[in-house]
Amino acid sequence: METQTVDQFAEMQKKSKLVRKWSLVSTTEAGSGHPTSCLSAADITAVLFDKYFTYDLNNPLNLFNDRFVLSKGHAAPLLYTLFGMAGAYPLEELKTLRKFGSRFEGHPVPEFVYAEAATGSLGQGLSVGAGLALVAKRENLPYKTYVLSGDGELAEGQVWEAANFASYHKLDNLIAILDINRLAQSGETMFGHHIEKYADHFKAFGFETIAIDGHSFEEVDKALKQAVTNKKGKPVAIIAKTYKGKGISFLENKDGWHGKALKKDELKKALAELGEIDDNLRFKFKKPAQIKLPEKAVVDDSVILSFEKNKEYATREVFGQAVAELGKKNTSLYVLDGDVKNSTFTEDFLKVFPDRFVECFIAEQNMATVAAGLSRLGKIPFVATFAAFLTRAADQIRMARVSEANIKYVGSHVGVSIGEDGPSQMGLEDIALFGALPGTVIFQPADAVSTAKLVPLMIDHKGFVYMRTLRSKTALLYEVTHEFKIGGSHILQQSDNDILTVAASGITVFEALKAADQLRTEGINLRVLDCYSINPIDKNTLIKCLQETEKPILVTVEDHFAHGGLGDFAAAAVSGINAQVEKIAVSKISRSGSMEQLLNDAGIDAAGIIAKIKSLIK
Amino acid sequence: METQTVDQFAEMQKKSKLVRKWSLVSTTEAGSGHPTSCLSAADITAVLFDKYFTYDLNNPLNLFNDRFVLSKGHAAPLLYTLFGMAGAYPLEELKTLRKFGSRFEGHPVPEFVYAEAATGSLGQGLSVGAGLALVAKRENLPYKTYVLSGDGELAEGQVWEAANFASYHKLDNLIAILDINRLAQSGETMFGHHIEKYADHFKAFGFETIAIDGHSFEEVDKALKQAVTNKKGKPVAIIAKTYKGKGISFLENKDGWHGKALKKDELKKALAELGEIDDNLRFKFKKPAQIKLPEKAVVDDSVILSFEKNKEYATREVFGQAVAELGKKNTSLYVLDGDVKNSTFTEDFLKVFPDRFVECFIAEQNMATVAAGLSRLGKIPFVATFAAFLTRAADQIRMARVSEANIKYVGSHVGVSIGEDGPSQMGLEDIALFGALPGTVIFQPADAVSTAKLVPLMIDHKGFVYMRTLRSKTALLYEVTHEFKIGGSHILQQSDNDILTVAASGITVFEALKAADQLRTEGINLRVLDCYSINPIDKNTLIKCLQETEKPILVTVEDHFAHGGLGDFAAAAVSGINAQVEKIAVSKISRSGSMEQLLNDAGIDAAGIIAKIKSLIK
Repeated sequence: METQTVDQFAEMQKKSKLVRKWSLVSTTEAGSGHPTSCLSAADITAVLFDKYFTYDLNNPLNLFNDRFVLSKGHAAPLLYTLFGMAGAYPLEELKTLRKFGSRFEGHPVPEFVYAEAATGSLGQGLSVGAGLALVAKRENLPYKTYVLSGDGELAEGQVWEAANFASYHKLDNLIAILDINRLAQSGETMFGHHIEKYADHFKAFGFETIAIDGHSFEEVDKALKQAVTNKKGKPVAIIAKTYKGKGISFLENKDGWHGKALKKDELKKALAELGEIDDNLRFKFKKPAQIKLPEKAVVDDSVILSFEKNKEYATREVFGQAVAELGKKNTSLYVLDGDVKNSTFTEDFLKVFPDRFVECFIAEQNMATVAAGLSRLGKIPFVATFAAFLTRAADQIRMARVSEANIKYVGSHVGVSIGEDGPSQMGLEDIALFGALPGTVIFQPADAVSTAKLVPLMIDHKGFVYMRTLRSKTALLYEVTHEFKIGGSHILQQSDNDILTVAASGITVFEALKAADQLRTEGINLRVLDCYSINPIDKNTLIKCLQETEKPILVTVEDHFAHGGLGDFAAAAVSGINAQVEKIAVSKISRSGSMEQLLNDAGIDAAGIIAKIKSLIK
Repeated sequence: METQTVDQFAEMQKKSKLVRKWSLVSTTEAGSGHPTSCLSAADITAVLFDKYFTYDLNNPLNLFNDRFVLSKGHAAPLLYTLFGMAGAYPLEELKTLRKFGSRFEGHPVPEFVYAEAATGSLGQGLSVGAGLALVAKRENLPYKTYVLSGDGELAEGQVWEAANFASYHKLDNLIAILDINRLAQSGETMFGHHIEKYADHFKAFGFETIAIDGHSFEEVDKALKQAVTNKKGKPVAIIAKTYKGKGISFLENKDGWHGKALKKDELKKALAELGEIDDNLRFKFKKPAQIKLPEKAVVDDSVILSFEKNKEYATREVFGQAVAELGKKNTSLYVLDGDVKNSTFTEDFLKVFPDRFVECFIAEQNMATVAAGLSRLGKIPFVATFAAFLTRAADQIRMARVSEANIKYVGSHVGVSIGEDGPSQMGLEDIALFGALPGTVIFQPADAVSTAKLVPLMIDHKGFVYMRTLRSKTALLYEVTHEFKIGGSHILQQSDNDILTVAASGITVFEALKAADQLRTEGINLRVLDCYSINPIDKNTLIKCLQETEKPILVTVEDHFAHGGLGDFAAAAVSGINAQVEKIAVSKISRSGSMEQLLNDAGIDAAGIIAKIKSLIK
C-alpha cells in the first residue's frame, strides 16, 4: 500500500515536471508571459488532472464534465499545457503561444474551447465557478467545479462577493484552489505566506478550508479527495502554500520574475534542472457518466400582455411581467438581481420560477460574472439592477463580452428622470458603457407596448443586449400590433413640411412630443422619432428624415450624459451625408427634485428642446 | 455614579427621539425617502454625536475635526438631522428635504458641506473613511474617522477591499459602525440578525470587533469608549444589532418599509408613539484642539526632463518620472497604485516619497474611493493602474465625480497596441467611461515630451483629469520647448494642398504619419493632427483644418472602441459646419499578437488609414 502511494506520486511528479517544462518552453518561445505563475500551481493541477478530473475532450460543453476555471488567467500556459497533456492537441502546438492566430492567447479566451470563461482581469474566476456550480445544484448535475486562484487576486472584493454567494447558495460542489505563492506583480502580497490569514477569511465566509503544502503530492491528493467527497453544504477552499517559480532554483521564491519569460540560455539551464522528462506522459481524464449537451434555447417570443389605453405604465414594470411570461416556454431563462427585485420588477419572475431566479444581494460584480458562468452552460441570464449600479460591474461586463457570453442586461432608473433620489441613483453613463463594447444591442423602450415587444427580441438575439427601463410611468405610444425590430425606430409625428427631426428615446420621447405640440401652435412642424433601438440605430430612417425635412438637422435628445449616448450613435450613423447633428443631453451632475424640475434643469425637457430648435432655425 | 449614568442616557434617549422625529417628519414632508433606515441607527449616532464627536461646525475642513462618513447614504435624513441638532442649521429647514434647490438631497452630495463624500452607491463609505484615516496616520493628525454602514451593503466586495486596506495600513483611528438591522430593500439580508457572522468576517479581516445591542445606550457608549481609545494597531468594527424602523411599533422590524415615507396620518401616529419631545435639544460637539485647514495645493509645473533625440520612450515611463519630479514641490500629491507600480511606473514616486505613495494591491474599487477621501482633505491623488482595470472602479469613479473630487487618473497599457497579453489587458473603453462624466479632461500624449508637459497640467486643473499612457516606446515628436494646453492639439504635418485631415492620438499618431508619408509618394497630401487633448478637443483647429483641406473630411483614428472615443468627441465638436467625420477605431474584440499585427488586424494602422482614405477620395 505504502509502495503504491509512492509510485502513484512518482508518476505524478514526472507529469508535473512536464507541465513545468511546457510552461517554460512555450513562454520562452513567445518571448513573454508568466512562467513562474504556472510553476507554483504545477503540482496541484497535475494531481487534479491526473486523478480527479472527469472530462470529455470531444464535448467541452457536456453537462457531465467537471469544470476548471483558471481565475489567475496569466497562468494560461499552465492551462494550455494541462489540456495538451490530456491529449487535446500536440504539445508542440504550445509553441504558438501568444502568436497571432493561435488559440493559445496571452490570457484564456473562448477560442480556447476548454476555457470556461475569458480570464485575465483578476478576481473573477470564483464568480464564474459559482455560476457553473449553481447550475449543477439547481439542475442536479453531478459535476464538480474547480477554480484555481492566485493570492494577489484575493485582494479583489469580487472574490468575497463570490465567497458569500457560494456559501449562501450552499455550493458544496465548488472547490476553490488557492495558489498562495506569496509574490504578486510588483512585490509581496498583502499577507505573504501567512496562509492562516486566507484560511481565516474563507472560513469566516462560510467555506470548508483545507490548508496544505501545495508542493506535497500527498497533501494535495488528500485535500482533493476530501474536497470532492465534501457533503457539508459548504464550498471548499484548498489553501496551498506554494512557491512562485517552484522547481527551478533561480526562479523559486525570487523577486522580479513576475511576467517574465526565460531567455533561451536561461531556459536551457532550467530544463537541465528539471532533468529528463518523458514528453509522452499524459493525463487520463475520467469519463463522464453520460453526454448531455446544453439544450438549444427555445425562443418563444409570444408575450401576450394587454394594456389599458388611457393608463400609464412604467417600462420597468412591464419588463418584469414580460420576462416572467417568457420564462414559461424559454426554460433556459435565468434572472439575476441584486436586492432590487421590487424596483426592477424581476420579482415577477421570482414568483413563478424561483428555481431560475438568483438573488445576488448587493454585489453587482459577482452577479455579472455569475451570469457569464450561466451563459457558458447554455442559459440565457437576465441581469437586472439600477442602471447606475451596472457600472459597478463594468469590468465584469467587459470580460463577459470577451467571453462572448450571451447575457441580457436590464438597467432601471435611468437618467435624471428618477427625481428625488438624486445623482447617485441615476444611470447616465450606461449607454457609453455598453455602447463601447462591440456588437452590444441597446434598447430603450418609451412605453409599455414597446417594452413588451422588445424583451422577446433580447432573447432572440444571441449576444449582449442591454435595455434601459424607466422609473416613472409613461403613456402608451403604440398599438399592440405594432412591430419592433433590432435597429428599428418609429416616426411618431410627421408632416409634409417638417422643419427638422428630433430623435428621442425613453422619457425624452414624451418631451419631444410636447415640444412638437407647442411649436405646431407657432406654425413650426417637427418630425419626432422614437429611437427605441439605440444601437444599432436606425440609420436609414435617420437619413430619410434628414433628406425630407426642410433643414438637414437632427436634434437628438436623451436622458444620458452628452458623451457616449444616443447622440453619438446618431451622429456616427449619418456621417457622410449633408447633416447637422445637435445633441441635447445631460451636461452636469444633477440633483434632487421632481422629475419635471430635473428634466428642465438638465435642459432635456420640452422647453429645452424648443429653445434649442429656435436657436437652430432662427 | 449609577444615577449619573442613568441620567446621561436619559438625556441621550430624548435626543435620539428627536433624531427619529425629524427623520420621519422630513421624509413625510418630502413624500419619499428611507426613514426606517434612519431609525435603526438613531440611538448609536445620538450617543456618538452627543458624547464623542469632535467638530468645528464653522470649519468642516478643519484637519482636527473628527470625520463621519454615512456609507448608507439613503439614511441621509439621519445625517441631516444630526448636524441640525448640532446647530448647523434650523431643524425646520429639514422640511426642504429632497426638494429642488435644497442642500438636503436624497443622498448626500457636496452641497451638504458636512458630508465627507457623496454616498448612495453602497459599500463605498469604508473606503472613503480609510482614505481619511490614512491621512491622519501619515500626517500625525489626531482625528477619528467614523463610518456608518448598513448591513445590506456589506455584501459589496469593496467593503472587504477596504477592510484589508485598513488593517494592512494599521488604521486604528478608523471606526466602522455597522447598523445590522436585518432588512435590506427587497427582503432579509444574507445573514439576517446573525451578527456573529459579521463579527467573524471583520475579525478575519484584521479588525477589532465589538458586538453590541445597538439600541442599548449603555452598550453603545461602552463600545464607542473602547473604540476611541483603541491603540492596538487595528481598525475597529462596532457591530450593532438593531431594528429597522426602531421606536415605531408599526415600522419596527417589519417587512415592506424600505424606502417608504410615512403618509401624513401614519406620521401622526408615529409621532404620538414617540411622545413629547423637546425640539430645542442639541448636541454639543467637542471643540477640536486647533484649527488647521488643508494647505492650498502648491502647483509647480516645472518638470525638467531631457530626452535624447533618437531614443524612444514609453509615455508610461515618462509619466512615472514626471510625477516623481512634481512631487518635490507639490507636497499635496499622493500616488495610489494597484500592484502594478512597475508597469505604470509610479514606483518612481514611491522611491522618493514613500510617505505619499499608497499601495492599494489588486483592489481598484477601494483605491478609487480612497482617493476621494484624500481629495476631501486637500490632497491631489494620482490613481494609476492599467486602463482596462480602471473600469473595475467605474462606479467608484462615477461617485467620486458626484463628490466633485479632485483626482488624476492614469491608465496605462491602452489599446490593442499592448500586443501579446490579449484583450483582457487592453484599455479600449476608457475614453467612453471618463468621457461620459461631465467636465473630465482627457489627455493622451503620444511621445515623451508631451507626456512630461501634460502631467503638470493635470495638477493645474482642479477636477477630474484622465491620462492614457502607452505600453510601447515611441519616438519623439516634439521639441522640449513646445507648449501644450488643455484643449490643445498640434498639426504635425501639413501642406498647401492637403486633401483631408487625419486626427489621431497616442499610438495612432505614428500610424497616421506613416500613412501620410506613403500617400505623399502617390501625390496625396494629408494633414495630420495630434489630438493629445481628447476632451476638451481642439474644436477651432479641427474646424480650421476642415476649412483648409480640399475635402471637408476629418478622419479620426484611435486605439479605442469605435463608440465613445476620440471620434465622437471630434464629431460633436465640428457639428454644425459642413464636415464629414469618419471614425477609424477598434470594432471587435482583439486577440494576442504583436503590436503591428494587432494594429493591422483592427484596421487602425497605416494600411487601414490609407485604405479608408482611398475609399473616401476616390
